[in-house]
Amino acid sequence: MVDILHRIGVTSAPDAVYAALTTVDGLASWWTEETDGDGDVGGVLRFRFGPGGFDMKVLETEPAERVLWEVVDGPEEWIGTRIRFDLKQEDDFTIVLFRHEGWREPAEFMHHCSTKWAIFLMSLKKLLETGKGDPAPHDVRISNWH
Amino acid sequence: MVDILHRIGVTSAPDAVYAALTTVDGLASWWTEETDGDGDVGGVLRFRFGPGGFDMKVLETEPAERVLWEVVDGPEEWIGTRIRFDLKQEDDFTIVLFRHEGWREPAEFMHHCSTKWAIFLMSLKKLLETGKGDPAPHDVRISNWH
Repeated sequence: MVDILHRIGVTSAPDAVYAALTTVDGLASWWTEETDGDGDVGGVLRFRFGPGGFDMKVLETEPAERVLWEVVDGPEEWIGTRIRFDLKQEDDFTIVLFRHEGWREPAEFMHHCSTKWAIFLMSLKKLLETGKGDPAPHDVRISNWH
Repeated sequence: MVDILHRIGVTSAPDAVYAALTTVDGLASWWTEETDGDGDVGGVLRFRFGPGGFDMKVLETEPAERVLWEVVDGPEEWIGTRIRFDLKQEDDFTIVLFRHEGWREPAEFMHHCSTKWAIFLMSLKKLLETGKGDPAPHDVRISNWH
């Protein structure tokens, strides 16, 4: 089992970061504009990117501290993996520790997703610090796989 | 042992990407301006970022295909780890598969380095596609840790 790890710091309060991770409006403003569903525990969030996408079951939410999802539909490599955001305050930043856990193997697609997660986390940072993120379909292209 | 993985695609020939990974001028144009040393097999490359930095022994170079370094000096977490760039052509892109292998534990610093590698690989892409990268000290800031 292998994991994707990232860390960013955002100059906004933990509550603001938490809202961007748990509300449809927030998520649609940094990850993909085609987002719907329910970001509360037990709910399912649906994220679409053109033809494909991901459905996430919300397993845990702790205001200003933690969000945990399990992938229940999407690419075969993603199903059953978990996505975790842990928040804390440090200096004047809210630190986001990100993990996409439980990949079965370090395939080429996992390399792509790791870089793409970094790009989207920088979009989350930009949204919170400037009011405007770069969600799909306006996301930064990194390769032939988009 | 855990690894950092990334994948980017660059619209330049593999030879150009290889040159940016094996020459001091190339490396200084996307990773850190304070680069010196020898990028050939058996040489040591020295990368500095303000007070700290990394020394890499060049273990393998295969023109247009592969570069492999071992960290011989730097932060304790980095020493003994290996950094690998594998190149291949796909569609109109040179694909760079990147691995920073052999971390002893998934510490918070590893999360930071994973995101920062994505930022620097996007700087490599930008250098090759536009003629100008964002090497340190002009790199994109991601958090309180820079």
